[in-house]
Amino acid sequence: DRLLFSKGHAAPLFYAMYAVAGAMPLAELQTLRKFGSRLEGHPTPEFPYTDAATGSLGQGLSIGGGMAYTIKNLRLKTKKTPRVYVLLGDGELAEGQVWEAANFASHYRLNNLIAIADINRLAQSQETMFGHHLEQYQHRFKAFGFETIVIDGHDFAEIKRALDTAQKVQGQPVAIIMKTFKGKGVSFLQNAEGWHGKALKKDELEQALQELGPVDETLRFNLKQPPQVTLGKARLSKNHLVFDFKKGDMVATREVYGKILAQLGNKDQTIYALDGDVKNSTFSQDFLKAHPNRFIECFIAEQNMVSVAAGLSRLSQKPFVSTFAAFLTRAADQIRMAALSQASIHFVGSHVGVSIGEDGASQMGLEDISLFGTIPQSIVLQPSDAVSAAYLLRAMIAHRGISYMRTLRPKTPVMYDEDEEFEIGGSKVLKSSKKDSLTIAATGITVQEALKAQEILSKEGISVRVIDCYSIKPVDKDGLLASLKATQKKIIVTVEDHFEHGGFGDFVLAAVSGSGAIVAKMAVDHISRSGTKDELLADARIDSAAIVQKVKNLLD
Amino acid sequence: DRLLFSKGHAAPLFYAMYAVAGAMPLAELQTLRKFGSRLEGHPTPEFPYTDAATGSLGQGLSIGGGMAYTIKNLRLKTKKTPRVYVLLGDGELAEGQVWEAANFASHYRLNNLIAIADINRLAQSQETMFGHHLEQYQHRFKAFGFETIVIDGHDFAEIKRALDTAQKVQGQPVAIIMKTFKGKGVSFLQNAEGWHGKALKKDELEQALQELGPVDETLRFNLKQPPQVTLGKARLSKNHLVFDFKKGDMVATREVYGKILAQLGNKDQTIYALDGDVKNSTFSQDFLKAHPNRFIECFIAEQNMVSVAAGLSRLSQKPFVSTFAAFLTRAADQIRMAALSQASIHFVGSHVGVSIGEDGASQMGLEDISLFGTIPQSIVLQPSDAVSAAYLLRAMIAHRGISYMRTLRPKTPVMYDEDEEFEIGGSKVLKSSKKDSLTIAATGITVQEALKAQEILSKEGISVRVIDCYSIKPVDKDGLLASLKATQKKIIVTVEDHFEHGGFGDFVLAAVSGSGAIVAKMAVDHISRSGTKDELLADARIDSAAIVQKVKNLLD
Repeated sequence: DRLLFSKGHAAPLFYAMYAVAGAMPLAELQTLRKFGSRLEGHPTPEFPYTDAATGSLGQGLSIGGGMAYTIKNLRLKTKKTPRVYVLLGDGELAEGQVWEAANFASHYRLNNLIAIADINRLAQSQETMFGHHLEQYQHRFKAFGFETIVIDGHDFAEIKRALDTAQKVQGQPVAIIMKTFKGKGVSFLQNAEGWHGKALKKDELEQALQELGPVDETLRFNLKQPPQVTLGKARLSKNHLVFDFKKGDMVATREVYGKILAQLGNKDQTIYALDGDVKNSTFSQDFLKAHPNRFIECFIAEQNMVSVAAGLSRLSQKPFVSTFAAFLTRAADQIRMAALSQASIHFVGSHVGVSIGEDGASQMGLEDISLFGTIPQSIVLQPSDAVSAAYLLRAMIAHRGISYMRTLRPKTPVMYDEDEEFEIGGSKVLKSSKKDSLTIAATGITVQEALKAQEILSKEGISVRVIDCYSIKPVDKDGLLASLKATQKKIIVTVEDHFEHGGFGDFVLAAVSGSGAIVAKMAVDHISRSGTKDELLADARIDSAAIVQKVKNLLD
Repeated sequence: DRLLFSKGHAAPLFYAMYAVAGAMPLAELQTLRKFGSRLEGHPTPEFPYTDAATGSLGQGLSIGGGMAYTIKNLRLKTKKTPRVYVLLGDGELAEGQVWEAANFASHYRLNNLIAIADINRLAQSQETMFGHHLEQYQHRFKAFGFETIVIDGHDFAEIKRALDTAQKVQGQPVAIIMKTFKGKGVSFLQNAEGWHGKALKKDELEQALQELGPVDETLRFNLKQPPQVTLGKARLSKNHLVFDFKKGDMVATREVYGKILAQLGNKDQTIYALDGDVKNSTFSQDFLKAHPNRFIECFIAEQNMVSVAAGLSRLSQKPFVSTFAAFLTRAADQIRMAALSQASIHFVGSHVGVSIGEDGASQMGLEDISLFGTIPQSIVLQPSDAVSAAYLLRAMIAHRGISYMRTLRPKTPVMYDEDEEFEIGGSKVLKSSKKDSLTIAATGITVQEALKAQEILSKEGISVRVIDCYSIKPVDKDGLLASLKATQKKIIVTVEDHFEHGGFGDFVLAAVSGSGAIVAKMAVDHISRSGTKDELLADARIDSAAIVQKVKNLLD
């Protein structure tokens, strides 16, 4: 069984329970919130009994849902199906993600998921929306498909009965809704506002301890080591990939994603694909066709999808999460928290940039490099053709932590040979000569624009070097510096289909800072609109014509 | 009355209705999705009847909630209270934000908000979770405090009756839940999968038009110009600000936020403050005390809070949205979409960086400069003392679009005189001499660290220049270039309490690119933990000791 504290601010209770159960010396509790202690202000994986970092509210039920789903899906040969218990605060039930998680749990009939809602009436700054009206929570959980049990959260017999009942429910998840009082048993604390997150002064503590009376020693217990289950081992895939395209074919990198992931999934049974009702656009549908039991349709609820993936990762599975890149911003906080949970999740965002065309600005991923690039130790990839997309997807699997691949909506020509090699942190020089004036570093859709620009410039007697920076983070610093050395002017023009700040150009700037090079960033500087791919690349001033103009200005 | 299409992909219907009502020539419909047309793939404010850009799903009910709240709060002297109608798709009801919005609407008894849920069974890639089980939606809306009306969405008489009934409901919002069929009336489209977002071929179109028969001319109507209501005019505040602190006092910039906003709110009746149950941490509680009727408690539901603010902005109010900076990432998609809606929202994120101390990594805002900085035409400010915080807050009000201020948890000394001037895009040189070796550009909490470092270095005979870059975007390019000119080495050390990528340092890099300067970025490069402010600044290597070391290495 697993226990998650979605209300991470109850960390002192979380630690104290484990200490009382003998998991660590009681004295270690004195290190709470101190630098270097594994008992942090909110639970993190530093403390080994923490299954997920919490502290940003409303995420625990999704993570627990991901774990409960995985446990059922693995069909473990244990006597009973392990259960996942999630302690939720009443304040956090206002987070929409909780209801995304509730839909997920009831849709997939996760009766091994038990939500315990601690209704203590008081949030941080005032009473919650519903105070002690427990029926408000009961109606909501019931409507979302949960079996509900309402109890007095201070009555041990009632708690025991509720847990016993919950364990017998079939076909649906369970919510135990408890009426509780903050500071129960201490006259000046009980049910009183203004104490959230405050430590007691010495005299207040003495009075509180006196009022609470002696510790009930019957509550001590010893943590029992459960039978150990070995899950599918994380295995590096050495698949020989089969391509159904050849050099010169027009293929969208998003199409490659589904096909290749399906192949990788043949060898590695721990790969899962999750999607938010756009599987026919991201092409994760090809994985669904090949491995229906390891495809999780998460419907249009991106926050829950990302936290479910964190739950999968915690149980040693390898989740690939796909949707439009723009809609991954919906789960920015969940991605941030997944990194804190030390989860390994592979994200694939399709429909990046203005190159998507007619659907308009709301569907364009133009902040995604910034979002994923900011996370420490993440990787960000953007292949520009089918071959590089396939090999980079395979390379992603080995990455521990957060990895991200941008895929393109439009088809691009297959440029590389089948035996070309690609590595995280690498780049490819596509055009070069002994007399190159400067370097154009492009990524994704702009690689083709850079190549067109190179051809035009070449006809006018201007030689430029073109690099395909398929690895955005880490960017190929050595490759960039080598290009700077090889060109007449120490200039790199970066071209990307992403907003100006936080994108590829900033990685290049940081990489060559100190070399004396000039980095001229070309990126999208205004909100785009509907139109054809070519009209919008031109409007954003990142098409071949704009590159030609920029190069001429720089060489003037 | 107002009408929002939360299901933005129904844009063709949205435009067609206005065309049929005579709001534009029918022929303009032929420009749909073409470059330059105001009829984009999803509605944007380019089309004047669009109240909010939609296309990222699940946001419309929140925006409508913000508008309905504003309308009720303004107590307009109209015969009837204007109503806000929001058309929702069934697929998007899986988004948690819809249920945040539902809680908001019922808590504030917004009976002038009418949700119309179009239950057509089919989402983009497959059937929705609940298909045509309308009772599933009815139970959910009822549980969340809505009056519900279930109808056949193809029966005009039923629709009319439902709208009439909805308009009479008191004390709670209303959801009209309609059973509909996609492609109704066309044999090969009706209720069929695989047609989402697909245009018909010529022969298919001909068949469809034939099956549908002649246009029912009785459905044409003329858009009636409603009586015009003039809302409170946006007025630039020229308040004389009253400070209850003086030079040398220790004051946290977050404390200044609430006090000064309350003062600004005295003169400008269009200022609202919104908070997500952390008003006693962000200090928006001071605005609540002064202007209770213009404070909106949004509880722990940040996505809804941001979209509610977009609704307020649409009705010419000036929303200030505050929570922990870390939790603004929860609403990254809503912030992105607010920019597309041309909304003006002022964000204030408290508890930035590792300097918050013991609460740990989950509560630290370390991605917020990246998040807000990426949005085109946004501004990002970070005052390091109380005086600059006050003046910059006042300066923010005039900004149209997305503006953001980072505020600090720890107290910092008041550095500036009361009559010092601060402008967006400016900076202050705090220490300088004729023989400065290089420049340290700091922002927020690191300003004090830079000053300490300057003192230590000075004692060792090394002169450095220190700048307070309180304006991060736009960064003071001229000021930075002037400092580069004035120092012996062309080096700027940037120090910030933010992750490495997408932060302040990248703005500086971009600003001085091409000048040949070296920019040495000091930023947080790993996930932090619990500890004291000073321990964590040292651990992140952005404290005075780290700065001293960095400067020495650079000068070596």
